Amino acid sequence: MTAESTPLTLAQLAELAGVSTATVSKVVNGRAEVSPETRAAVEALIRRHGYRRQRRRPAPAAVVEVVFHALEGDYPVEIIKGVEEVAREHRLTVAVSELHRSDPAEQDWLEGVLRRPTGVGVIAVFSSLDETQRERLARREIPLVLLDPADDPGRGIPSVSAGNWNGGLAATRHLLELGHRRIGVITGPGYALSGRARLDGYRTALDMAGVPADPDLVACGSFLIEGGLAAAQRLLRLPDPPTAIFATNDGQAIGVYHAAHRLGLRIPDDLSVVGFDDLPSVRWALPPLTTIRQPLTAMAEAATTMLLALAHGEPLPQSRIELATELVVRESTAAPRR
Amino acid sequence: MTAESTPLTLAQLAELAGVSTATVSKVVNGRAEVSPETRAAVEALIRRHGYRRQRRRPAPAAVVEVVFHALEGDYPVEIIKGVEEVAREHRLTVAVSELHRSDPAEQDWLEGVLRRPTGVGVIAVFSSLDETQRERLARREIPLVLLDPADDPGRGIPSVSAGNWNGGLAATRHLLELGHRRIGVITGPGYALSGRARLDGYRTALDMAGVPADPDLVACGSFLIEGGLAAAQRLLRLPDPPTAIFATNDGQAIGVYHAAHRLGLRIPDDLSVVGFDDLPSVRWALPPLTTIRQPLTAMAEAATTMLLALAHGEPLPQSRIELATELVVRESTAAPRR
Repeated sequence: MTAESTPLTLAQLAELAGVSTATVSKVVNGRAEVSPETRAAVEALIRRHGYRRQRRRPAPAAVVEVVFHALEGDYPVEIIKGVEEVAREHRLTVAVSELHRSDPAEQDWLEGVLRRPTGVGVIAVFSSLDETQRERLARREIPLVLLDPADDPGRGIPSVSAGNWNGGLAATRHLLELGHRRIGVITGPGYALSGRARLDGYRTALDMAGVPADPDLVACGSFLIEGGLAAAQRLLRLPDPPTAIFATNDGQAIGVYHAAHRLGLRIPDDLSVVGFDDLPSVRWALPPLTTIRQPLTAMAEAATTMLLALAHGEPLPQSRIELATELVVRESTAAPRR
Repeated sequence: MTAESTPLTLAQLAELAGVSTATVSKVVNGRAEVSPETRAAVEALIRRHGYRRQRRRPAPAAVVEVVFHALEGDYPVEIIKGVEEVAREHRLTVAVSELHRSDPAEQDWLEGVLRRPTGVGVIAVFSSLDETQRERLARREIPLVLLDPADDPGRGIPSVSAGNWNGGLAATRHLLELGHRRIGVITGPGYALSGRARLDGYRTALDMAGVPADPDLVACGSFLIEGGLAAAQRLLRLPDPPTAIFATNDGQAIGVYHAAHRLGLRIPDDLSVVGFDDLPSVRWALPPLTTIRQPLTAMAEAATTMLLALAHGEPLPQSRIELATELVVRESTAAPRR
């Protein structure tokens, strides 16, 4: 296991193995987009010669890049606070940007990241970046950590998320325990695995309580207030409407409040509502929202710590971290009337 | 007016004038903390020899530093969006940090700013920085722009704010036009000039309408939801309570909603409420809040553009910009019942 000579650089290993530096980078960063044969060959070379990571320590003016899917509402601030907490300790700069997917010419925020010579790495929030973007980061040995990933982080890319399935379970169990049997659920966009996990938690809770799942009670929404409003209106106009709704994010839950208000339903008297996230604003909704707390700031701290470890060339104890969610009972849930 | 020789650097001018480089920097950056005599002397030297600014153009990886008084709620995101818009166009990095006044050891976020060699400058949000911090930035020729300054930007430091007085006037006139005569107002912390300007607008509107100002109807609050809640409770428990409340920020207005709710008062039937800011969240308050729109994103764009001009050594057409506010009527205001 000890190296025979001076450890080799990435470029030297690539030359010896007859592969690209990007491939070697993937192997040393524990990513999975490499064939088992190539991986074995590169690992054998590393065992024999050792590997010398070039950037062992971020420069004093090092930058943690936080890229958001969208800069909207109070969710981004909860994330920035966590990144800033760790960054301040390590005297790093926190750079914030937004992915502008709609405009292809502006998709190259990555150009900016690559131009900056002193980057620690990238934290992508609710986005997994596309294949090309990941490739380019890997080629430059710029670490990437996914935070609250929208779709499958997969292929060994380190990620930090919350206990989404457990949260869905806890939200639905809370409503079942209050006596609700017709419980509606509003899901996120189909690609969002986090929303799907919450939905599965809902289904399991119903199943374990012996309550048959009614497909009419599952409404698809976006993760926006407007999406929750439209979905709740559909649910509440059913011939046999739900007495409670589990909205799989807090924005949707606020949409449910508006749908209830338009139909003259009082929360929680006529309708119970549970959200997901526990953004600061929903503590001040009227009535204050019962929700599943997703520890966004702690998740951001964990992601930043992971990123620093990667930048320092340290091994990650685990490449997927999932922080626990927690039910926070406020005033939007009560026993059903009927 | 033409220079006699090669333009001089800041240091050369300082030597010739027998003053510090910080003083010369203040003169060339149009700041006012310099005696008229010194200013005249330095300006004469510049007219004679010319002045060669050292950094004429930010480096490609240049950083715009946005420092917040507090990272809370959806206000910071509105600001970051505007800075990012301009920064993206000019390929700049947006660095976000928070002033941690409570912990003196952590007050030196400035150290980080000074360490970064490629800074464009600093945008301080709802904060004017202290004297020492301003001095240190000036000494290093790092431009500073104040955005929505809490206290007096004064002394020639460039700033961008909103039409606070006009907003206070418009909010109060709207309530007067609806027929309200007992109009309460919740002010911000005493040092916040923005809140004071809004209060003065309120007073002028009353005066012009011939409605006597009742000092009992002026409640001091913080700019937080809790502050609005406490202040509104005091106002609504008066023997002759107001039929409308002008809250000088949106957070306070949400606090007023909670105070009304606790006292069993309906908005707008029993109480009209006007806020100030128009944060995205209050469009979804129940009922949606009538408020004064402060164009935070446009203000942030203007501040970033000013900062870039300063970094490029270009003169500012004006060092204090005030963007117009606008009344946005939603559903929290109506004619009084009595």
